[in-house]
Amino acid sequence: MTGFVSFVSSGPGDPELLTLKAVDRLSTADAVLFDDLSSGPILAKAREGADMVGVGKRAGRASPKQDHVSRLLVDYAKSGAKVVRLKSGDSGLFGRLEEEIIACREAGIEYEIIPGVTSAMAAAAAAGIPLTRRLTARRVQFVTGHDVTGALPEDLNLAALADPTATTVIFMGKRTFAELARRLQGAGMSADTPALLAESVSTPEEKLVRGTLGAMEQLIAEEAADGPALILLGPLAEGR
Amino acid sequence: MTGFVSFVSSGPGDPELLTLKAVDRLSTADAVLFDDLSSGPILAKAREGADMVGVGKRAGRASPKQDHVSRLLVDYAKSGAKVVRLKSGDSGLFGRLEEEIIACREAGIEYEIIPGVTSAMAAAAAAGIPLTRRLTARRVQFVTGHDVTGALPEDLNLAALADPTATTVIFMGKRTFAELARRLQGAGMSADTPALLAESVSTPEEKLVRGTLGAMEQLIAEEAADGPALILLGPLAEGR
Repeated sequence: MTGFVSFVSSGPGDPELLTLKAVDRLSTADAVLFDDLSSGPILAKAREGADMVGVGKRAGRASPKQDHVSRLLVDYAKSGAKVVRLKSGDSGLFGRLEEEIIACREAGIEYEIIPGVTSAMAAAAAAGIPLTRRLTARRVQFVTGHDVTGALPEDLNLAALADPTATTVIFMGKRTFAELARRLQGAGMSADTPALLAESVSTPEEKLVRGTLGAMEQLIAEEAADGPALILLGPLAEGR
Repeated sequence: MTGFVSFVSSGPGDPELLTLKAVDRLSTADAVLFDDLSSGPILAKAREGADMVGVGKRAGRASPKQDHVSRLLVDYAKSGAKVVRLKSGDSGLFGRLEEEIIACREAGIEYEIIPGVTSAMAAAAAAGIPLTRRLTARRVQFVTGHDVTGALPEDLNLAALADPTATTVIFMGKRTFAELARRLQGAGMSADTPALLAESVSTPEEKLVRGTLGAMEQLIAEEAADGPALILLGPLAEGR
């Protein structure tokens, strides 16, 4: 008998931001494969007795290779297990969902994807702001601050990113922010553009730091801890 | 005694995609002000005996004016009520959250924002695809298909929107799609760009229609019902 894989989005960290569907899948899973960022109190929702396997990747640390994670997933499912693959935030954003889906398809394993609360929405909510504005901020964009090598991606669409009327959310961009800020300003974005650093959103370690595009490099150096962080740019980042 | 307002994101429609926090606020509310799209089975999570007030806006229908909604919200809170303002999808995206927050601030009423699952994530999950790809789709952008007049916004950033490597999600864009498609193709986007129409996502009426940028106008005319819909453009929309 073949098992089943549920790709479950865990949300930004607060277990109260899990969906009912996510809690249901956790509470009936035979095995849970989890990232570092979806660990902690969220894992307490898993069925007692389930196999709990940490397969996390964090910046700068050694971690299991992606094909090893995919193989584990497939092996568990082939053994007949109901597997939860727990991914932080929303599983479809800046994760490795596609590689793992392909591994399931190639092995003939059925799966589902359970969407969740992305950390971008949670950061805006924590800051008390919307991500869009009716008249002047009608486009919101999410980008990653690093490519597979860990550097700022080379092929940035600067006409898109330097648009002062959009809200831009940079995921995993602390380490490369100085270079990105230089390129955005070179493309005409004002140093005064409001910016917000949002770290460890929705957890007890949550930290929100407001500033500007021009000041954010220094604010990151002075204020950032080592939690996962987003940087928001645009008119709405100025907040209250 | 002054009340409190919880801006609660209801998710795309499936009550199982509510967060635990949203369910908690619904189950203890004295009054629930809800949009049309967050009605139905989601409202069954509200406390029995709570005032249930529909303040929905839907395209093409008469609906309460925004300042009337804000006034209702403030009046309920001033009477000491725990008010839930239920907004479909994630409350910070393409809603009127900002106007209502400002009304609360001006009236000295405390509030919180509870993030939720946006319909864009739910559409991708239903289609079995991620919204980003590690090497070739690292930017995702959300835009609205109409401005306050109901027409396609004039100030589109076509360099951003016609980027063939991004995933673009158009909210409320069925009626203006033909004009948008013409402008995107005029800006160099290929008519062969994969496109996905996702209607009434996560509800029993869910409908997913795959096509291309060039074919989507006709597909909308032939296949779309009258539910809320998203249109996804980009390499990932081709799916399985």
